[in-house]
Amino acid sequence: MEAHEEADKNGNLAALHEAFSAGAPGQVAAALKPLHPAQVADFLEALPAEERLRLWRLISYDVKGDILVEAHGEVRRQLIEESGPEELAVAVQRLDLDELSDIHEELPADVVEAVLRAMDDQRRQRFDVVRTYPENTAGGLMDVDAITVRPDVTLRMVLNYLARYRAEHHKIPAHTDAVMVVDLDGRYLGQLHLSDLISLDPERKVHDVMDRGVAAIAADTPAVRVARLFEDRDLVSAPVVDDREKLIGRITVDDVIDIIREEAEHSVMATAGLDEETDTFAPAVTSARRRAIWLGINLVSALLAAWVISLFDHAVDELVTLAILMPVVASMGGVAGTQSLALVIRGIALDHVKEGNRWRLLKKELAVGAINGLLWALAVSVIAGLWFKNPKLSLVFGAALTINLITGVASGTLIPMLLQRLRVDPVLAGGVILVALTDAFGFFVFLGMAAVFLV
Amino acid sequence: MEAHEEADKNGNLAALHEAFSAGAPGQVAAALKPLHPAQVADFLEALPAEERLRLWRLISYDVKGDILVEAHGEVRRQLIEESGPEELAVAVQRLDLDELSDIHEELPADVVEAVLRAMDDQRRQRFDVVRTYPENTAGGLMDVDAITVRPDVTLRMVLNYLARYRAEHHKIPAHTDAVMVVDLDGRYLGQLHLSDLISLDPERKVHDVMDRGVAAIAADTPAVRVARLFEDRDLVSAPVVDDREKLIGRITVDDVIDIIREEAEHSVMATAGLDEETDTFAPAVTSARRRAIWLGINLVSALLAAWVISLFDHAVDELVTLAILMPVVASMGGVAGTQSLALVIRGIALDHVKEGNRWRLLKKELAVGAINGLLWALAVSVIAGLWFKNPKLSLVFGAALTINLITGVASGTLIPMLLQRLRVDPVLAGGVILVALTDAFGFFVFLGMAAVFLV
Repeated sequence: MEAHEEADKNGNLAALHEAFSAGAPGQVAAALKPLHPAQVADFLEALPAEERLRLWRLISYDVKGDILVEAHGEVRRQLIEESGPEELAVAVQRLDLDELSDIHEELPADVVEAVLRAMDDQRRQRFDVVRTYPENTAGGLMDVDAITVRPDVTLRMVLNYLARYRAEHHKIPAHTDAVMVVDLDGRYLGQLHLSDLISLDPERKVHDVMDRGVAAIAADTPAVRVARLFEDRDLVSAPVVDDREKLIGRITVDDVIDIIREEAEHSVMATAGLDEETDTFAPAVTSARRRAIWLGINLVSALLAAWVISLFDHAVDELVTLAILMPVVASMGGVAGTQSLALVIRGIALDHVKEGNRWRLLKKELAVGAINGLLWALAVSVIAGLWFKNPKLSLVFGAALTINLITGVASGTLIPMLLQRLRVDPVLAGGVILVALTDAFGFFVFLGMAAVFLV
Repeated sequence: MEAHEEADKNGNLAALHEAFSAGAPGQVAAALKPLHPAQVADFLEALPAEERLRLWRLISYDVKGDILVEAHGEVRRQLIEESGPEELAVAVQRLDLDELSDIHEELPADVVEAVLRAMDDQRRQRFDVVRTYPENTAGGLMDVDAITVRPDVTLRMVLNYLARYRAEHHKIPAHTDAVMVVDLDGRYLGQLHLSDLISLDPERKVHDVMDRGVAAIAADTPAVRVARLFEDRDLVSAPVVDDREKLIGRITVDDVIDIIREEAEHSVMATAGLDEETDTFAPAVTSARRRAIWLGINLVSALLAAWVISLFDHAVDELVTLAILMPVVASMGGVAGTQSLALVIRGIALDHVKEGNRWRLLKKELAVGAINGLLWALAVSVIAGLWFKNPKLSLVFGAALTINLITGVASGTLIPMLLQRLRVDPVLAGGVILVALTDAFGFFVFLGMAAVFLV
């Protein structure tokens, strides 16, 4: 089945590729039919920028909306930029409200206005609520299409209401695993799960069977906290309330998956100073410009290390072996520090590292650094001894390595804790600061000790 | 509301902390009551190993099962190890089949056997199917509690069946957003969404309203591909079939979230040679032993670089400035390479980097490396010129930097592609290999050029 699905998918994608190469809009339209918008978005994201736009122009307006919803970051922005306002209005006007709320921030203001004008009053009012919350909060994430019922009606009445809702709207909103129970003022009371609705006696009242266990999420809750809540409680959808506890929307698990995925991409990209929205196939000049800053920051760090070495150039001049061994001291400290850094960054993300256990964690990391520092100091001392036959040099080398390893784990533990307090992203800045420290300090301690004891 | 929830949660956790400090089992039991098992698991994970076990012993058997399900990696294994077989049997026997299938691989064989003996035949047979598939495949992930119906019955008959199912089993399986439609041989035909079931005319037949659009997932599909499918199609649950297309289970979105979260943790931890299952608060000796290997691997890389320097010790001896500048060349190549590496690793994970565009991506990365190489070569040449007033040295320095930057981006692009082919995890091995290359080659090209042109 997987084999079929794969073959099918590749067959369909191959057909798209062929139609696209031929440059025939009719053929492209036919080839797009069997594909899911997410597949088309994926296909577009894997094309170089110019070809991507060439294909985009061959796609008909009415399917572009769904593809935009599925596209990511920079690629989505590029596709929006390259589309005319009228084209965009056609593309997005048939989107669901939750899809529109996912992408509206990237659309030109006049397109959003045009789409809003075409909405009925109730939808527009609901949508205006979403727009007041920042994108990375529960309010910004939520859909405004929750179905609500009163607590004092019977399940049969709810079933009848849903049948009427379906007849009127032609569909039940996606990811409706429960309907929301609210009082007359619209305050959230609980959820009525569809699985209860279909399997319990229809004459029972909603307030008897509703689930009061799913706490409402405040609209200003940060998105990452929402994601943790969904993970821990295995939720499919959750109610969102304003500061007066009034139900204003619901968050569904598909939006939560997007958040977790973005977090994951951020962990990969930010350590290299890249934005997770970066287009893999952006033009070279654009990419080079963006990466230049990060290289510049690292150059400052490297020049700092070079300056430290220059302080001891007389020592290196006298004993050239120092130049051979000094990068070993620096790099081992960096590696040990990176291990602590990764551990603490994950611990902070999972909320395991907090006020009460920070000091204990630092002590533990220092012990780890000391154990490994001594172990590897012994190893490198023996290697250096055999290599250069200079016992005093071996001792200094081993001692410097131990000290820099301990410096590394201490920095790797403290830097992310400090950055978190300063509200600087530790994934982005942690590694650079750490390596700047372990390089400069590694050279300093090794060459400094050599200057005192050896030359 | 968030504020309330937070305050509540912290209040409850504070109560647990207090009861635990007092060491009173009764108080601990009372303090655990208002907490979700995920909160208790979190609390345990944030404790140092010894205290964690002390609390674990105070928790009563019957709630331990749910906590084990919510605990992660190494911590879960530790808690299982520290529990007696009888205690474990009590703890896990009241778990749902899907929860049991999540943790059964980590339980002692005799405990699993004891729990299986207590099951009815049908459940045991279903569970035996799950056990035949590796954990990281669709078959290993799936739950075996799917509710199935035939295509030729009416929606009313399905509703009646669900009411009987509920009466008999006391609940509908979690995350049942749809029931599975199968033919007489158990082959998967489609899904009947609950939202359709409750809102469409009950006299309609299942085959008229079922959704044939959700393709079944083959049991041997890798877990990461399953996750991508759920993300792209916004699924809540999906059917799993064996190689004869027979329905054998279903995967639910909560398991998929766990996979994506593990992937995210893997990206953070593996770059430092750490397992994502690592306990943040493991004892220092255990941690030190695990990290030692990674430090050893990096030592080999550092010694390789040292050996390269030793080849040119006469050059360094004659011109000590070389020792000052050589780390700059090495580190800038490493940073540029890390940027390409992150980009390509993400591209591979998203399936954007493939056969057809690899060569194009390499060309683009080379262009990026050349542009930034020349830019920063100019900058460092000027800096070195002002610093050491040696124009020839500045030229060699700039040229070596450019060459190593280009080497870096080429390696950062090719290494993950090669590793992927060799089925080695690029997140784990990519960074080490890259730095080994850019360090050794950086020293080689700078010192080599200096040996030829300067000394």
